[in-house]
Amino acid sequence: MIRIAVDAMGGDRAPEEIVAGAQAAVRHGVTPILVGPAGLDTGGLELVEAPHTIGMDEKPVEAVRHKPESSLVIAHRLVGEGGAAAVVSAGNTGAMLAAGLLHLRRLPGVVRPAIAVPIPTRSGPSVLLDAGANADARPEHLFQFAHMGSVFAEEILEVARPEVRLLSIGEEAEKGNRLTLDAHALLVESDLRFGGNAESRDLLRGAADVVVCDGFTGNIALKLLEGTIKAVLDALRAELAVTARGRLGGLLIRPAAGRLRTRLDPDTYGGAYLLGLRGLSVIAHGNSSRSAIARAILLAARGVEHDVVGRLAARLPRQAAAV
Amino acid sequence: MIRIAVDAMGGDRAPEEIVAGAQAAVRHGVTPILVGPAGLDTGGLELVEAPHTIGMDEKPVEAVRHKPESSLVIAHRLVGEGGAAAVVSAGNTGAMLAAGLLHLRRLPGVVRPAIAVPIPTRSGPSVLLDAGANADARPEHLFQFAHMGSVFAEEILEVARPEVRLLSIGEEAEKGNRLTLDAHALLVESDLRFGGNAESRDLLRGAADVVVCDGFTGNIALKLLEGTIKAVLDALRAELAVTARGRLGGLLIRPAAGRLRTRLDPDTYGGAYLLGLRGLSVIAHGNSSRSAIARAILLAARGVEHDVVGRLAARLPRQAAAV
Repeated sequence: MIRIAVDAMGGDRAPEEIVAGAQAAVRHGVTPILVGPAGLDTGGLELVEAPHTIGMDEKPVEAVRHKPESSLVIAHRLVGEGGAAAVVSAGNTGAMLAAGLLHLRRLPGVVRPAIAVPIPTRSGPSVLLDAGANADARPEHLFQFAHMGSVFAEEILEVARPEVRLLSIGEEAEKGNRLTLDAHALLVESDLRFGGNAESRDLLRGAADVVVCDGFTGNIALKLLEGTIKAVLDALRAELAVTARGRLGGLLIRPAAGRLRTRLDPDTYGGAYLLGLRGLSVIAHGNSSRSAIARAILLAARGVEHDVVGRLAARLPRQAAAV
Repeated sequence: MIRIAVDAMGGDRAPEEIVAGAQAAVRHGVTPILVGPAGLDTGGLELVEAPHTIGMDEKPVEAVRHKPESSLVIAHRLVGEGGAAAVVSAGNTGAMLAAGLLHLRRLPGVVRPAIAVPIPTRSGPSVLLDAGANADARPEHLFQFAHMGSVFAEEILEVARPEVRLLSIGEEAEKGNRLTLDAHALLVESDLRFGGNAESRDLLRGAADVVVCDGFTGNIALKLLEGTIKAVLDALRAELAVTARGRLGGLLIRPAAGRLRTRLDPDTYGGAYLLGLRGLSVIAHGNSSRSAIARAILLAARGVEHDVVGRLAARLPRQAAAV
């Protein structure tokens, strides 16, 4: 049984939705270890006690340093010490990164970990990274992200020889900012299957198996994707409410719209991997529901089964550390 | 009558859609001057001859330098020499910028011109800039963009005291990359109505009257917005086609979906202003239809009526050049 440390106190809907999500994951053959305050009703699941909690708005590095007994930090320590195979939290993303660096530590040759988010696209899933671990990045970081994303796509998305593209403002090699132009030059020389630049308008159409960018750009892109999908469907609903014909149409399309909402849901996978550490860390959305948490736990379990960390460790040093 | 120089050969659908768009604009009281090859059928509109054309993929600076007799360059020269009050082109954006710098020149105190795109949002229009004139920007550039956008929102969007926000990866002041953190510090000290950071997920909800970012980020955001709106509506159509109930619903919602598509259409305004030059320049989408071109010409005419250039000239030096 795969043991996953789950931060019971992370996220806007903790602990209720987290505990419920962990219980749902049990039915899929995973063993969640809940980390939270003494007396938490875990419904029979194993509890590791953590007296403190890190808030969503706390400063990450300070919070991790000053609250070693917080649920987020203890969950990471469990993985670092071998008590669990991976950690899942819907808590403070910056604190996840800080705790990961401190208690899981970087893989040899990795300069910066990156947040890898699977995106459901028309032509199957693709992975975008970095989605926000590093607001500022250098070309050699993007180069490493490309390698990490490539291993991820092979292992988790099961794409044979994943195509990697660089998110930029035009498909031509000479379109971009200084960062992407320099990263482009590095990627052309790599042994990855590099397809050149991808434009943001093609993200949902499956621009590539792996889409690489700095964390600022990736975070902007992801939140925009999320916000726009929601805004369009909400606007359609409002527009339909105006006429009787629209209201009837709205009733009829409800099941299809629901399927669409699910299919495009950026939370399909429940979470994002923090790649580049010696342990597996999955970051769930702050407002995750129980089903999103269950999916995040299963995503972590899949990463363990496929030994994502081991494969990154084996392949990164020779491929990416040479820069 | 306001005379607008229109590059008849710019864009994927030139010259047919451009000429048709210019003819439509005449009915709204504007006088388009078409710039294109001798013998072009303008349907009676004034033609200024230009033997050459700059292609969409030509290198901007070289193309403008080596093709002084191209339609795009001559259209700019017309404005520079007073033969027209503004220029409109659906051609090569980089060449528009290069020709603008060469023949219209920068306003005193302006370091970098910026592309300002009006976005239709739930709470009325807002303006995003820079949408791609400068792939790399410094904090003081963003500071100037904020001032230009503020004048634009007052004059064109008719917002009394526009709120300006900085596009970033979190609403808190300490969230961002080095560029936005430094720009934030400058904006806090300005006399603008600065509302702090805006997140990309709120762009369509009307995050602010003016949203400021570097041209790389702005271009990524705009194309993503465009691509996602289209992808969601297309996916809904495909989903509805699956069942009989969905197909009937699809028929019933057609008018509402059409209204929505129009309302969210990033081409509602037909084009974007290139702000910061001594003359008015409007950049239309490369694949503009006749109606988009007509709207772009009217947008240019509105800018002339409101004397956007004069007002920028009057207000920028003392506000923004001090940095």
